[in-house]
Amino acid sequence: MPNMKEIAKQAGVGIGTVSRVINNSGYVKKETREKVEKIIRVNNYVPNEIARSMTSQKNNIVAFILPNSTHLFFGELLYHVEEELFKSGYKVMICNSSQKIEKEMIYLDMLKNNRVDAVILLTNNDIEKYLDKTLPILSFDRRFTDIPFVASDNYQGGILAAQKLIKAGCKNFMFIGDDAQGDNTPVYTEVTKRRKGFIEYLNKKNFTNIVNIEYPLGDYFIGCDEVYEMIKDYPNIDGIFTVSDAVAVAAIQALQKMGKRVPEDVKVIGFDGGRSFLNLGMRLTSISQSPELIAKAIGEIITSFYAKKTIQNQIIPVTFCDGDTA
Amino acid sequence: MPNMKEIAKQAGVGIGTVSRVINNSGYVKKETREKVEKIIRVNNYVPNEIARSMTSQKNNIVAFILPNSTHLFFGELLYHVEEELFKSGYKVMICNSSQKIEKEMIYLDMLKNNRVDAVILLTNNDIEKYLDKTLPILSFDRRFTDIPFVASDNYQGGILAAQKLIKAGCKNFMFIGDDAQGDNTPVYTEVTKRRKGFIEYLNKKNFTNIVNIEYPLGDYFIGCDEVYEMIKDYPNIDGIFTVSDAVAVAAIQALQKMGKRVPEDVKVIGFDGGRSFLNLGMRLTSISQSPELIAKAIGEIITSFYAKKTIQNQIIPVTFCDGDTA
Repeated sequence: MPNMKEIAKQAGVGIGTVSRVINNSGYVKKETREKVEKIIRVNNYVPNEIARSMTSQKNNIVAFILPNSTHLFFGELLYHVEEELFKSGYKVMICNSSQKIEKEMIYLDMLKNNRVDAVILLTNNDIEKYLDKTLPILSFDRRFTDIPFVASDNYQGGILAAQKLIKAGCKNFMFIGDDAQGDNTPVYTEVTKRRKGFIEYLNKKNFTNIVNIEYPLGDYFIGCDEVYEMIKDYPNIDGIFTVSDAVAVAAIQALQKMGKRVPEDVKVIGFDGGRSFLNLGMRLTSISQSPELIAKAIGEIITSFYAKKTIQNQIIPVTFCDGDTA
Repeated sequence: MPNMKEIAKQAGVGIGTVSRVINNSGYVKKETREKVEKIIRVNNYVPNEIARSMTSQKNNIVAFILPNSTHLFFGELLYHVEEELFKSGYKVMICNSSQKIEKEMIYLDMLKNNRVDAVILLTNNDIEKYLDKTLPILSFDRRFTDIPFVASDNYQGGILAAQKLIKAGCKNFMFIGDDAQGDNTPVYTEVTKRRKGFIEYLNKKNFTNIVNIEYPLGDYFIGCDEVYEMIKDYPNIDGIFTVSDAVAVAAIQALQKMGKRVPEDVKVIGFDGGRSFLNLGMRLTSISQSPELIAKAIGEIITSFYAKKTIQNQIIPVTFCDGDTA
């Protein structure tokens, strides 16, 4: 953010006055307001969106519905979304849904009632029938009909993981992830493409020893003991790709419990970027999503809602994140 | 959260209708509204605060200003604060200040202008002179005159760490933390009591070999290289207590760089609770703050603002969290 103090100094007013002008709130003398607004323009201090919001009737609040902000990647995404939308004059209301559709509905109703201007929806719930498609709703990692969405290039992430494990000499592969393709639920999420990209690339390269582990959709905090139960009957696996970094860490712990060494006996690749793992002595190999770029795409779509611009779905590139576990 | 579906079923209406009744928004037939409200009361479905808010003119929005929600403990606290306040009918607006006073001011102005009903302030900035003490502001880990606050029992945390290191046989101690006592800034935060409790207890037990490392206030994401520079000239240290888990992990990495083994050569204790560290092979020994209890205390104070109850500051107990590093 540019420096509000400098604006205040140039205008010869206090920092509070500048804030009141930006928020269009509280008493500011007309001459003072005009002076501050001019200096703001000259310094190119605030984006046009803020300038516009000064005269609009919007609340400038966006609700971000997500399952749980303590999930490492979701937490990072929340941070960057808030930073990005703030630049455009929006405040972010957070809703940790804990995957309860009832709680999600309350925020969607706030949208209907103009108490928030837009909703960012990150959900695994079977909520499509409740969505009013005429309202400014944006989805992350999930496709609904007639709702714009942003997702990482999950399919390419699966390919990158497969390539790395093949290159590392693996022969017996495993994917561990939640049931995001909807075999057991009516919900299909973009996340299933991590699995799809991985398995299809391996098949293309004539690797067919692939164990595909699925657990219930949305179980974000799966731990070592649960993963141990999933993998203990597959002692020959030598390359594992998981749907998230958290599951990768649980898998590494489960492998240690099985007496396996990582990466010597089994190579493990996570998904998200390994950034938040201040682990002791080992960096997690991972496929990196960019919360900054995703937040930027989300910001573009949110501002497009009100600028009546054409809205395009956005697929954000992923990158291979080198580490010590594969 | 209780089950909205059941309320809808009992009332013979859709889930959306129940939501509209709770939010007092959108069209609901008078008879239907009364029926739903009755079932809500009979089932004791929503707390009284929500019921009250149905007829109030409040926005039911609380702004939570914090330095950075990707900081592991702050992220956990945000999650629990949102969950706790939701029970009382409040939505949470998040402000990642990145410690910029200009950004904090914008949210404080929203409070002045009744766009939010209360502010939770978690800040290291010299912001006291800008605070309107007549407004519902609550501070975490920081004391301002005439502003209610919640803090962990940081002093007791320092004592617990000292006791553990003494018991483990340490003789040469070190504390690493930011300058939260205001020697180099005008800001004094409650966090300094971690240092104070630690050093005063050691002195009381006649340990005087204590190195006290201070770095600039609010440097939350200090890494291995920075900690290495701080500690490399103290090869005899055998017991380290740090201001946070993140710094403890950086210290362990720095010690490894110095060729020291943890915990054999040097014992390390962090602060926050070691919960979020999905580290590979080592559990961090730590002093645990309870984000749940802190959020509960914050919720009580926020609801007291509008219930015109007496407001009391709250100090939340900490506990020793056993691990592998001390």
